[in-house]
Amino acid sequence: MTAVTGFTLDGEIEEPVPPDAVRLPPPRVAPPPLPFCTAEPYERITHTYGKAYRDLMRAFRGRFDNPPDFVARPRDEHDLIRVLEWAENSGVAVVPYGGGTSVVGGVEPRDLGPSVSLDLTRLDRVLEVDEVSLAARIQAGMLGPDIDRHLVAHGLTLRHFPQSYELSTLGGWIATRAGGHFATLATHIDDLVESIRAITPRGVWESRRVPGSGAGVSPDRMLLGSEGALGVITEAWVRVRPRPAHRASAAVRFPSFGRGAEAVRTISQAGLHPSNCRLLDPAEARLTSGGDGTYALLMLGFEAADHPVDAWMDRGLELARSHGGTWDEVRPGGGGQGGAWKDTFLRMPYLRNAYPAIGLVAETFETAVTWDRFAAFHAAVTGAVRDALGGTGIVTCRFAFTYPDGPAPYFTVLARARRGDEVAQWDEIKRAAGEAVLTAGGTITHHHAVGRDHRPWYDRQRPDPFAAALRGAKDAVDPAGILNPGVLV
Amino acid sequence: MTAVTGFTLDGEIEEPVPPDAVRLPPPRVAPPPLPFCTAEPYERITHTYGKAYRDLMRAFRGRFDNPPDFVARPRDEHDLIRVLEWAENSGVAVVPYGGGTSVVGGVEPRDLGPSVSLDLTRLDRVLEVDEVSLAARIQAGMLGPDIDRHLVAHGLTLRHFPQSYELSTLGGWIATRAGGHFATLATHIDDLVESIRAITPRGVWESRRVPGSGAGVSPDRMLLGSEGALGVITEAWVRVRPRPAHRASAAVRFPSFGRGAEAVRTISQAGLHPSNCRLLDPAEARLTSGGDGTYALLMLGFEAADHPVDAWMDRGLELARSHGGTWDEVRPGGGGQGGAWKDTFLRMPYLRNAYPAIGLVAETFETAVTWDRFAAFHAAVTGAVRDALGGTGIVTCRFAFTYPDGPAPYFTVLARARRGDEVAQWDEIKRAAGEAVLTAGGTITHHHAVGRDHRPWYDRQRPDPFAAALRGAKDAVDPAGILNPGVLV
Repeated sequence: MTAVTGFTLDGEIEEPVPPDAVRLPPPRVAPPPLPFCTAEPYERITHTYGKAYRDLMRAFRGRFDNPPDFVARPRDEHDLIRVLEWAENSGVAVVPYGGGTSVVGGVEPRDLGPSVSLDLTRLDRVLEVDEVSLAARIQAGMLGPDIDRHLVAHGLTLRHFPQSYELSTLGGWIATRAGGHFATLATHIDDLVESIRAITPRGVWESRRVPGSGAGVSPDRMLLGSEGALGVITEAWVRVRPRPAHRASAAVRFPSFGRGAEAVRTISQAGLHPSNCRLLDPAEARLTSGGDGTYALLMLGFEAADHPVDAWMDRGLELARSHGGTWDEVRPGGGGQGGAWKDTFLRMPYLRNAYPAIGLVAETFETAVTWDRFAAFHAAVTGAVRDALGGTGIVTCRFAFTYPDGPAPYFTVLARARRGDEVAQWDEIKRAAGEAVLTAGGTITHHHAVGRDHRPWYDRQRPDPFAAALRGAKDAVDPAGILNPGVLV
Repeated sequence: MTAVTGFTLDGEIEEPVPPDAVRLPPPRVAPPPLPFCTAEPYERITHTYGKAYRDLMRAFRGRFDNPPDFVARPRDEHDLIRVLEWAENSGVAVVPYGGGTSVVGGVEPRDLGPSVSLDLTRLDRVLEVDEVSLAARIQAGMLGPDIDRHLVAHGLTLRHFPQSYELSTLGGWIATRAGGHFATLATHIDDLVESIRAITPRGVWESRRVPGSGAGVSPDRMLLGSEGALGVITEAWVRVRPRPAHRASAAVRFPSFGRGAEAVRTISQAGLHPSNCRLLDPAEARLTSGGDGTYALLMLGFEAADHPVDAWMDRGLELARSHGGTWDEVRPGGGGQGGAWKDTFLRMPYLRNAYPAIGLVAETFETAVTWDRFAAFHAAVTGAVRDALGGTGIVTCRFAFTYPDGPAPYFTVLARARRGDEVAQWDEIKRAAGEAVLTAGGTITHHHAVGRDHRPWYDRQRPDPFAAALRGAKDAVDPAGILNPGVLV
């Protein structure tokens, strides 16, 4: 690790505070007498946080200052409506909870009054599969692998792979506009949604299932990214696709991140629509994919169920070569340096749980910015975070998604923790990153959502009349303001 | 004509009521003393209607019951803000007006109190072109051909071609979610919008310019389709692209519309993304493209700036052949039967002006529906409209756009007019069509917007809590309710 990151950890392995030693604030409200509600301390503890570093760290130290007062696990919409009715009458905040993988404080009942964590994972079924239209009606609490396990019997896949894939739910993806690692085209879950059904305190919000519409403002697009503030998503019709039968991938080396970025811009603007177009800077290539730190690495991949993708790949590589790219081979599937990266990528949600113990502070943040600003943006953000780190630690960058008009850069920050002061240290890094991203022209988040952690920058980023409109919309469907207060509005 | 449509017109050519014979209701309010406002009768007349048949017919007969009381033509945002402030203080409705090509009553001040038509066509400039990110900042009142004339100097195009292209504006496209005749992918202007700037009575609503974002509900997606009810769009950053250098097109014949539809479904689901994939039923192929009525006709086309499209076309035609498709040749550009269709298509906005004079009643309506429902949907809608026509006239269908999960069918209705009673006759057809579309599972509009004419079905189609949310959003930014009352909410 030292050779790669340039800093050493102190070698001390700290033990976490065990769950039974945690002292929880007593519940401020008793759960309603419903069989699917519980105030068990273990349930309250495991529904307090998401998976941000500051969440992991606080859990590690046994700090659970803002747990939900109880947890509800509705078995169906009927149960769910009973909770909402009770909560509205009792003035209790309702925080929807899917896989609990928010990295932005989206599921933490932070500084709320009495609250219930509404765990939706019992809504876990595929209700219909339409093999003619290639769509499926799926309940919101279903986990990624369960969805695909069901669809594989039909030869289909949702093909939406956020990094949290194994631990997160369809409803969570929709509420947060998750990114699913199609590098182009259907980058967000937004593009895969055909219709959404949600329960609001003022009734059922269910859109008509059609392949496209121009009937006024899109009802689905108002729920996408609503983060539980407008309604509780219970199911959706989503677009699925045949499992890919043809694949080609190559790991292309570039002499610098800048040269690689130019290649990605050219490929993005060529109309080839690669499924994978992930560019790692030299440090990240070294850290995750066996690079030696002298080159940037582009994982370029095409896939299709219908036809061989050679023509697409050939042209993509021609464009890469014209920007100084070199590669060893084109593989028909995964593996190679791309495979090494993928393994690291999917292990990350598990690995990160170890950071607190080993004294590593880690932050990842992501954004999107237009190509004309990218070079200056990258320099400004990297510089600002380096300054916040005080000369130690490492800042790397990759492109997670790419568009004709700009990339979605993803930054990883690793540094030696100030033991005992990690949350403050993390907050300093986060603040520096957020300020730099906003000032240099990015969005505060491309696919991690806003939650509570991004509010300071989100509030500055969004237009004021839009904020007022969103508040007006919320007041109309949630007049008591019980739905996930503190996120968005 | 008779041979094709199966009915004869009476041959009588009626003359329209000339503008100077029109008796307008006197203005109910005097315009503010601003140099860009006028209550000239000619201006009021030409800002009363859009281009629906019922608009043309009423204008033809000199019926102008609901003209705006005056017309304002702001030269810049400063002027525009003065109008909005004056209107809010005076309780006067503001109806934004771009090219005036609404076919759904979107620009008609129908049954409003005092009103001003806010003509935005003086906001007609390209403000910036970003050749690196492929984007341009364009004022909302600019017409389609003017936009492309400006961009051609940069080797770029917006490539958004609604049928009204020559007469309509960027702001109108955004407010109504116009379809631009990319058959797949960027079907609506929505997909080309990078950011929007609008003026509301509560300030400027301007989103950040980024290639993608997941920061909460999208502010742009709330303005897209807002039809002037939330704010007046003044400019937008839009995604542009290099002008295509490579093209291939073929006119493929199918023994029936159903076989052609199956071919289109297969092609849509193959991930080939044709730029043109327009299927005409046998009657429409005969009417517009030189068909003999025995075959359906698919115009299949691919285009790219970056690379030859042979591999794409070859596979598209293979799929067409597997569904019984035959063709004579693949052309490198347009022309042929596709060219004949395109000529008719672009002439249509002019031709339709003649319908009232020759005693023809005409209606076009469009929708989208999932593939699993399409066959039954097509039969139900065609049958219902035929019934409404009472055994005379013709109903044809084409696919205007297509998605992996369903097509966007476009219906054309032509019949002999009941002279003097055409508007009632048209209303009957419209009512039958709207009812059938909604009952059989379509959307009341895929790209013509809601306006005032589609309200009865739109109100039933949209979820009630969403309607309440939209009303709440409007109340927040337009508390006096002056912005285009009657559309959407």
